[in-house]
Amino acid sequence: MTGIDGFWAVIPAGGSGTRLWPLSRRDYPKFLHDLTGSGQTLLRATYDRLEPLAGDRILVVTGAAHLDAVRGQLPMLARDAVVAEPSPRDSMPAIGLAAAILERRDPEAVLGSFAADHVVTDTEAFDRAIAEAVVLARRGDLVTIGIEPTRPATGFGYIRLGEALSVEGAPSARRVADFVEKPDADTAKDYVATGEYRWNAGMFVVGATTLLEMLAEEHPEMTSHLRTIAGDESRMRDLWPALRKIAIDHAVAEPAARAGRVSVVPAAMGWDDIGDFTSLSDLIEVSETVPGVKVIGPADDVISIDSTATVATGGRLIALIGVDDLVVVDTQDALLITRPERAQEVKKIVETLTAQGRLELT
Amino acid sequence: MTGIDGFWAVIPAGGSGTRLWPLSRRDYPKFLHDLTGSGQTLLRATYDRLEPLAGDRILVVTGAAHLDAVRGQLPMLARDAVVAEPSPRDSMPAIGLAAAILERRDPEAVLGSFAADHVVTDTEAFDRAIAEAVVLARRGDLVTIGIEPTRPATGFGYIRLGEALSVEGAPSARRVADFVEKPDADTAKDYVATGEYRWNAGMFVVGATTLLEMLAEEHPEMTSHLRTIAGDESRMRDLWPALRKIAIDHAVAEPAARAGRVSVVPAAMGWDDIGDFTSLSDLIEVSETVPGVKVIGPADDVISIDSTATVATGGRLIALIGVDDLVVVDTQDALLITRPERAQEVKKIVETLTAQGRLELT
Repeated sequence: MTGIDGFWAVIPAGGSGTRLWPLSRRDYPKFLHDLTGSGQTLLRATYDRLEPLAGDRILVVTGAAHLDAVRGQLPMLARDAVVAEPSPRDSMPAIGLAAAILERRDPEAVLGSFAADHVVTDTEAFDRAIAEAVVLARRGDLVTIGIEPTRPATGFGYIRLGEALSVEGAPSARRVADFVEKPDADTAKDYVATGEYRWNAGMFVVGATTLLEMLAEEHPEMTSHLRTIAGDESRMRDLWPALRKIAIDHAVAEPAARAGRVSVVPAAMGWDDIGDFTSLSDLIEVSETVPGVKVIGPADDVISIDSTATVATGGRLIALIGVDDLVVVDTQDALLITRPERAQEVKKIVETLTAQGRLELT
Repeated sequence: MTGIDGFWAVIPAGGSGTRLWPLSRRDYPKFLHDLTGSGQTLLRATYDRLEPLAGDRILVVTGAAHLDAVRGQLPMLARDAVVAEPSPRDSMPAIGLAAAILERRDPEAVLGSFAADHVVTDTEAFDRAIAEAVVLARRGDLVTIGIEPTRPATGFGYIRLGEALSVEGAPSARRVADFVEKPDADTAKDYVATGEYRWNAGMFVVGATTLLEMLAEEHPEMTSHLRTIAGDESRMRDLWPALRKIAIDHAVAEPAARAGRVSVVPAAMGWDDIGDFTSLSDLIEVSETVPGVKVIGPADDVISIDSTATVATGGRLIALIGVDDLVVVDTQDALLITRPERAQEVKKIVETLTAQGRLELT
């Protein structure tokens, strides 16, 4: 058996990524893109990061519309390793269904859930953190990974660290004192200054049955429905649409933390969720051939005179003269020009287009 | 006979317009575009402005490569009303050839030469100025139109006004004291402050034979060659390439001014040469539906949040968020982003592309 004994990797491949419009689209979301120019899609890079830990014990949960694209990106996966959600119902149903499927295959299964559209640059640190998390999960904890903040980010929720745990094989482990919502800028600075907060990257490691039992405490009917679907796929059609749209954080992690059942492995691993173009820009180096410009795409497609910008090319030549600190994203049918400090507002364009009924552009 | 008796309009349709790249291209230059969104190309608008003055006495001189496009824009022109230059040799050979052709058709012909890619918004003022200019031309003068400056422009040459002339039918007429080159910003301010300078719009009105005789004084072989070609089109091939590349200003207007033979009709007529995107932007109103943005193209193709810009659309959606004072020009294969104060440098992009051998983009 390859990797960590009994460890299953679950990859929820969903999310609309509207803050990365016009790159990310409804029909072609963020995880199907090679946003950083690594040569791989984010989905494939996520798979490659997890394969050494989980071998062929990998389960992808994605929207029915993306099934073919996911299989195309991950042709090595067995047919039953990709599960299609008929409609998006947020992270709890997606991960809960994976847990229900996995406990049937392996009653001792420990699953780790990792979004298909995040990046991790320090794979060794990631591996070490997951190994510790699996040890903690086997004790019955819900385990999360707490990312060491590299800036006072306002785009992530935070985890407040509690007491250190003395667990063999998990020397970094701490209790989770609290999950806190995305802070404002001042609060974020305070969090980072204390040293007692970590970013909540939405990574959870937990026994499959443990997760479903934690879920049953507040949402017993959801646990029941997910187990029914896992046993009889034909029930997906009638039961799935009735499931409550809820994030795993609210459904399970926060209540479990209040009950003292959540532990955290703090780690620094070069993680980013590429939440918007500023975040994406931070992951890219300035071009060697186009001074002052970060280019996503062929550098030959950009000519710059006295300009600084992050430019995603879309197949045409892009000429910049005397412009500073722009974000330019070109695609076949849509062009975005904004500034890093306004990058969060990109989703408003998608909202406007949706309100106008121009869905072909979203 | 329609219009002004014996008056012929000559339209040199040439120029590369590299400062309007990527709209203006080698194969599709400025005069073939409807830059201002008037519904007409600049060439057709020029024709429409001249037709009331010249009727069917209109001659277009253009590059061989643009012959079909010119005929397509002006289908009403007779076959011999469009003359093709085998290669560009600047304005003197083009206008001189027109003069040589016209003096054969009408020995008393007075021609007026008007670039195919300028705009005039006050047609009545234009008509009045030309009527005065024809009167002066009949006296043997080379006549130019002096545009009243509306700003201390550095992109135009200036005409220094001399003594008032007392000519019946030409009450505004002044002698030209001097033609002066494009000034720097301070000099331009001084020119405008004195009230004694007018923009040189390159409009000349002159007897066809007068022009050729003035040309013969400094360039007798050019006059001779042009008359030979006008009499025998088959000589175009061997004689044209040998003609010196020279502007009418240097070849004739400046020497004639020194000899006191050039008069000027000062006028205000909403003229512009649309020399760059700043000049183009000045001709366009802010969109009623896209606040703060001047749109060249369908306004529906632009969505703006807190932005000011001049945007030429190219068939795709353009979304702006929090950007100020940009010039954005989108086309199928190239996108330009610059600022108004850098608009003159757009030609550097064309130079770079040419140096790179990427002529398909120029």
